[in-house]
Amino acid sequence: MTADAIQTKQVGRSTPRLEARAKVTGRAEYVHNLRLPGMLIGKIFRSTVAHGLIKRIDVSAAKALDGVHRVITGEDIRAIFADPYYGPAYHDQPVLALDKVRYVGEPVAVVLASDPHIAEEAAGLITADYEVLPAVFDEVEAATATTYVHDALKPAGTFPDLKHFKGRKNTNVALDYHLRRGDAEADFAKAAHVFEHTFRTQQVMHTPLEPMVSAAEATESSVTIHTASQSPSFVRTEVARLLGWPENRVRVKVPFLGGGFGAKLYIKLEALVAVLAIMVRRPVKISLTMEEQFYTITKHATTFRIKSGVTKDGRITSRRCEVWWNGGAYADVGPRVTQKSGFTSAGPYDIENVHIDSYAVYTNLPPAGALRGFGIPQLVWAYECHTDLIARGLKMDPVEFRRKNILREGRPHATGTIMHDAAVDAVLDRLARRMNWDGPFDRGSGAVKRGRGIAVGYKACISPTTSVAIVNVCADGSCTLYSSTVDMGQGSDTAMALVVAEVLGLSAADVTVVHPDTDVTPYDMATLGSRSTFHMFHAITRAAEEVRGKLRGLAEELGLPTDTPYAELFRKKYGMQAGNIIGVGTFIPTYIPPDHETGLTSNATPFWMIGGAGVEVEVDTETGHVRITKLVDVGDCGKPINPKVVETQLSGAGIMQIGFSMFERMDFDAAGQLTNGSLANYKIPGFADLPQDISGEFVEAQQKSGPFGAKGVGESGTFGVSPAIANAIEDAVGIRLAAMPMTPEVVYRALRSAHNDPLEDK
Amino acid sequence: MTADAIQTKQVGRSTPRLEARAKVTGRAEYVHNLRLPGMLIGKIFRSTVAHGLIKRIDVSAAKALDGVHRVITGEDIRAIFADPYYGPAYHDQPVLALDKVRYVGEPVAVVLASDPHIAEEAAGLITADYEVLPAVFDEVEAATATTYVHDALKPAGTFPDLKHFKGRKNTNVALDYHLRRGDAEADFAKAAHVFEHTFRTQQVMHTPLEPMVSAAEATESSVTIHTASQSPSFVRTEVARLLGWPENRVRVKVPFLGGGFGAKLYIKLEALVAVLAIMVRRPVKISLTMEEQFYTITKHATTFRIKSGVTKDGRITSRRCEVWWNGGAYADVGPRVTQKSGFTSAGPYDIENVHIDSYAVYTNLPPAGALRGFGIPQLVWAYECHTDLIARGLKMDPVEFRRKNILREGRPHATGTIMHDAAVDAVLDRLARRMNWDGPFDRGSGAVKRGRGIAVGYKACISPTTSVAIVNVCADGSCTLYSSTVDMGQGSDTAMALVVAEVLGLSAADVTVVHPDTDVTPYDMATLGSRSTFHMFHAITRAAEEVRGKLRGLAEELGLPTDTPYAELFRKKYGMQAGNIIGVGTFIPTYIPPDHETGLTSNATPFWMIGGAGVEVEVDTETGHVRITKLVDVGDCGKPINPKVVETQLSGAGIMQIGFSMFERMDFDAAGQLTNGSLANYKIPGFADLPQDISGEFVEAQQKSGPFGAKGVGESGTFGVSPAIANAIEDAVGIRLAAMPMTPEVVYRALRSAHNDPLEDK
Repeated sequence: MTADAIQTKQVGRSTPRLEARAKVTGRAEYVHNLRLPGMLIGKIFRSTVAHGLIKRIDVSAAKALDGVHRVITGEDIRAIFADPYYGPAYHDQPVLALDKVRYVGEPVAVVLASDPHIAEEAAGLITADYEVLPAVFDEVEAATATTYVHDALKPAGTFPDLKHFKGRKNTNVALDYHLRRGDAEADFAKAAHVFEHTFRTQQVMHTPLEPMVSAAEATESSVTIHTASQSPSFVRTEVARLLGWPENRVRVKVPFLGGGFGAKLYIKLEALVAVLAIMVRRPVKISLTMEEQFYTITKHATTFRIKSGVTKDGRITSRRCEVWWNGGAYADVGPRVTQKSGFTSAGPYDIENVHIDSYAVYTNLPPAGALRGFGIPQLVWAYECHTDLIARGLKMDPVEFRRKNILREGRPHATGTIMHDAAVDAVLDRLARRMNWDGPFDRGSGAVKRGRGIAVGYKACISPTTSVAIVNVCADGSCTLYSSTVDMGQGSDTAMALVVAEVLGLSAADVTVVHPDTDVTPYDMATLGSRSTFHMFHAITRAAEEVRGKLRGLAEELGLPTDTPYAELFRKKYGMQAGNIIGVGTFIPTYIPPDHETGLTSNATPFWMIGGAGVEVEVDTETGHVRITKLVDVGDCGKPINPKVVETQLSGAGIMQIGFSMFERMDFDAAGQLTNGSLANYKIPGFADLPQDISGEFVEAQQKSGPFGAKGVGESGTFGVSPAIANAIEDAVGIRLAAMPMTPEVVYRALRSAHNDPLEDK
Repeated sequence: MTADAIQTKQVGRSTPRLEARAKVTGRAEYVHNLRLPGMLIGKIFRSTVAHGLIKRIDVSAAKALDGVHRVITGEDIRAIFADPYYGPAYHDQPVLALDKVRYVGEPVAVVLASDPHIAEEAAGLITADYEVLPAVFDEVEAATATTYVHDALKPAGTFPDLKHFKGRKNTNVALDYHLRRGDAEADFAKAAHVFEHTFRTQQVMHTPLEPMVSAAEATESSVTIHTASQSPSFVRTEVARLLGWPENRVRVKVPFLGGGFGAKLYIKLEALVAVLAIMVRRPVKISLTMEEQFYTITKHATTFRIKSGVTKDGRITSRRCEVWWNGGAYADVGPRVTQKSGFTSAGPYDIENVHIDSYAVYTNLPPAGALRGFGIPQLVWAYECHTDLIARGLKMDPVEFRRKNILREGRPHATGTIMHDAAVDAVLDRLARRMNWDGPFDRGSGAVKRGRGIAVGYKACISPTTSVAIVNVCADGSCTLYSSTVDMGQGSDTAMALVVAEVLGLSAADVTVVHPDTDVTPYDMATLGSRSTFHMFHAITRAAEEVRGKLRGLAEELGLPTDTPYAELFRKKYGMQAGNIIGVGTFIPTYIPPDHETGLTSNATPFWMIGGAGVEVEVDTETGHVRITKLVDVGDCGKPINPKVVETQLSGAGIMQIGFSMFERMDFDAAGQLTNGSLANYKIPGFADLPQDISGEFVEAQQKSGPFGAKGVGESGTFGVSPAIANAIEDAVGIRLAAMPMTPEVVYRALRSAHNDPLEDK
């Protein structure tokens, strides 16, 4: 704690989480615990049809129920707020349904009462009449259908490089993204081998343990929103825009989150509670049930048609990728996924000719957004199954085939961006070693066959985005960090404290982290896409360095040695224990937007995330049950800030992805009604589903442009898991699954119709 | 809202208060409204003796009452916290009484229950046995008594220039301050006239409309205190010291205050609720009743013996001041008052030989601290009555006599500090003009006699003290100010917003003020002593100027004109509505501590406050009733930031001082028991007591060293009121009152014993 820089290295030491004790003793603050004086509880009445014009909403019985304060519909809101629509990419989503409904479960009205049970009972008394319209559910069909979910597209304009939006006739395609590098079609014509497959993924839910919740309190000219959000700065800006108020009249406060995974991004309940609180002049809180989250935000189902041209000796020379993203009824951040993950569709491979077409498609399903990987796991699923199929077709070892084709340091990516600090090779090497790939392998016995598989994936970081931080040293040398990064279980508070401690020569416990509060903590784009470690930690480092510089300057001004304890400097300067030394840091990475026509750019991302997985499975050929016996999840995080947390992030992501791979799927009937919308029917992984042998590991690497050589790793553990499992299943029993989840039923059926190849190989 | 500085002048325009609407609609946040989940309410059991050793506290009946959660005594606290004492000047005050009690009403135990009525009932069931000790009540007697309130003195050390504390035998004198300029005694011997009088003031209460209230919530290692405090930064530092924790584990949040007036400074209930919350692991709140405030903090009663040598033609050449301050049982900030106001005891007069002796004295009465004027009204009462008596003795007009003697620009003050920007002459001139002093005056008729009087006073600002501010501009150009200045009704939020708006070319409504929260708003010494306008506004100006510089730099970097709208700069820089521009400002004035022996210094204060009052009275000679028919309260605020607020500050202070002058007095019986401790018996001014003709006015002036030429004015309106009334009474009916309050009874008795001169004139 002296003005003279860093003595102990805090960064890189596994450090117990600062908030651990508060969490295990039940003292950590969550919005669900918040009670405001005079607070009303809102319960939502939802659409029962997938697509329909609203003819009548009858709220009379609900209003008549004793204890009901008010019932509010979309029209009530529009009577006061002229254009009550929101969305990060398109202003397409109404605060409550207006004119028509676009999916089963869409919010149509809200009942407000002091007693949540009364509100719920009243919501059950509301009825609505719709003129039912034809609906579209499949993403490929919707892209060419003549039934339109939206009549017009309303781009938000906050994504300035949504350049591929052009006056388009089919409004179901919210955004089409295209990349052209070389001439894939010409190469296919002359390639020794051509492989083409189609893969699909299903719609699933984020299932944060803490369901979504927001509360608002308002005056005539200001509103404070308490919300379980990953993006407080966005909520502020977007609600201010919707209300027509300046930013500083909208205050957004976020305590701890019980998980986010992309579900709690952008606007979820925030606009609704804000508008309600302003209308009724009472605090309003809405807490979703776990089940209601199915109707709020989900993960994109996808269809991915992939085609590769390969030389005789196994070099991939061309690849065409066509990806349809099922965005559901409202775009949320889907167009951004389509574009920002879309350009990685060809995989982490060094391919000269690449064509990519990626389509964000509206359908009459619950909206889809980002889910731990921002679309990457869907892409890796396809291209890494495809990669194994090519290797198998060429009778090459899948590790060896990948080694021949992966992108290496200094080589150009499909966008033209030169690869740096992307340890694809190191991740692959680690996987091979940890899987003992060249060693003997027990292939099972009797009805149980054993197999193994690997897969590697990669991701760009959404760019350009901004982070700002303030570091404030108190007169006794203890320290406060103001950051809008949301601690949602990923351990950001502790990691950020480590960074401040590193620069200022403190320990992490000396640093108090002020949780997001937009009147207080400065702008941060959002806690998403594994961006915080790189962006926010750069901002924090700059802020702390400014503080360190000021403290050294103070020592010089006072004629004291630079290693004078901070508290002593303050006492000398201010005559008592008084004052603060404050530093501000802002970070935005360099970014070069892609060319409109080709999609090419020399700077597609501030850094690359690399993740790979190796799995061993046992397939019961009599039941179709697949048991994952081993999972090695490897990531490149550059230099780990808090190594233990990196390891659990990787294995945690792996476990989550096991659920999506093996059993999670939202099932819809022909009318678009979700038929398994409860955790009794929709199964997430339990302890019995976890591999006995599971590990999250990082490779030795440095992100030279990163703070302390670090970069994000929150999503990397999801990348390789699903295709590694499919590859292992094929390795075990010779069947290829082209869609997730790989349930016992699916495996059983595939085993029984072994020659009924579901793939369209040529 | 452009990068190119100030177009409109915000400062100096009367601006409606930003918070007015929230206050009149009942939406403004106060701690009394705060409810925390699981919160316990504390009710205090208080001492019934003025001085006694605690023999036994019986809490068994209280504990046994249904619904009581816990009963806690001082010993319970000491069992956990080794040295549970606090105080800004001396660590003399226990969180709850330990070993002995020192005044009637001292907190001895606290009952905690969820239900306040149960807590109160239980507190009534506690009994305590004391070994009663002799008590001292009078400040002059206590200074030489052998009964000691404290056995030892424990200086806090946070006031580094408490140089006059020396190992002293009589521990009832907490601090003795001395100033020696020239040789007053020698001058008396040769003076044409010598006048000596003794004046007294009484103990009164601040009576904020919002009684004191604090709440705390704690974990094992951190505590958050919500409190109606004027000094959040001090509360943080002091509670952290008491707990032995670093500053950043103690968070202090302050919303609006319903008045402070010095009552809510330093530690009041904060240490108690913090310690209780940590002990019981539940949130704890204590709200005092209006009556309990009598036992918490009061205004010093004083005895002031003043002696002046005057030349034949009416020049004061020497003055000796002896002031005894009745500090009650705990020092609070009394020693600071003794010293910092003590050096102004000789008044705003140009006197060559000045001796000052000022004594902070412990007695067995409720503690005394600062009350709107920091001791100045007590001093002005004495020296301005004395001044009128001299003029009368010399048969000179009191205005003319003052004009001859006042301190003028460039002349040395008693401390040796050269006077600058202290508009004593302008205030005096304004008073004479507004009172039509040289015009005809109606002297009444029948039993009702009319008179008029004036008085001028002055005050130094406590120094050196530090203020820090952060200004944060959002991406749409709206703005947030982080300041620990407490808005307690004086209009600081609006004035601070005006300052930010001035520098950044915004309007006040564009600026959101973040209320004090020590994890967020940076250090500020406290909202006291009219220091905020000078200190905090300097800090804010610097912060806003840093922001303006950065915005201009950004415009240059982007190659845009400096008058580009802020929102446009952000959009260009960050690619969307993102980011912040943040500036930090710190201010501490130059200060030269006084010489240990002589009390002389060339820089006693960053600025001088000047206040004067003129009154007209009607005295009913049959009843003794005094009616104030006119009050002109004039202050020198330099350049007013928000003129309308300056005017109401001045008249508001005048009204408050009318209460202290005319009827407020805490009456104690011989055992030290307060006999009028309720607002039924202790009367504060009502509308019927206000002069029909009342005005608060500022003179045209500039504080050159002040922000925009401004300085504080919150207390100046109290200075002249009391002596102006006494002077007017003498002018009307020829009696001289030497003590406040000037009740009808006192006036009546004085009229009846007209020759029984209560003064010790020579």
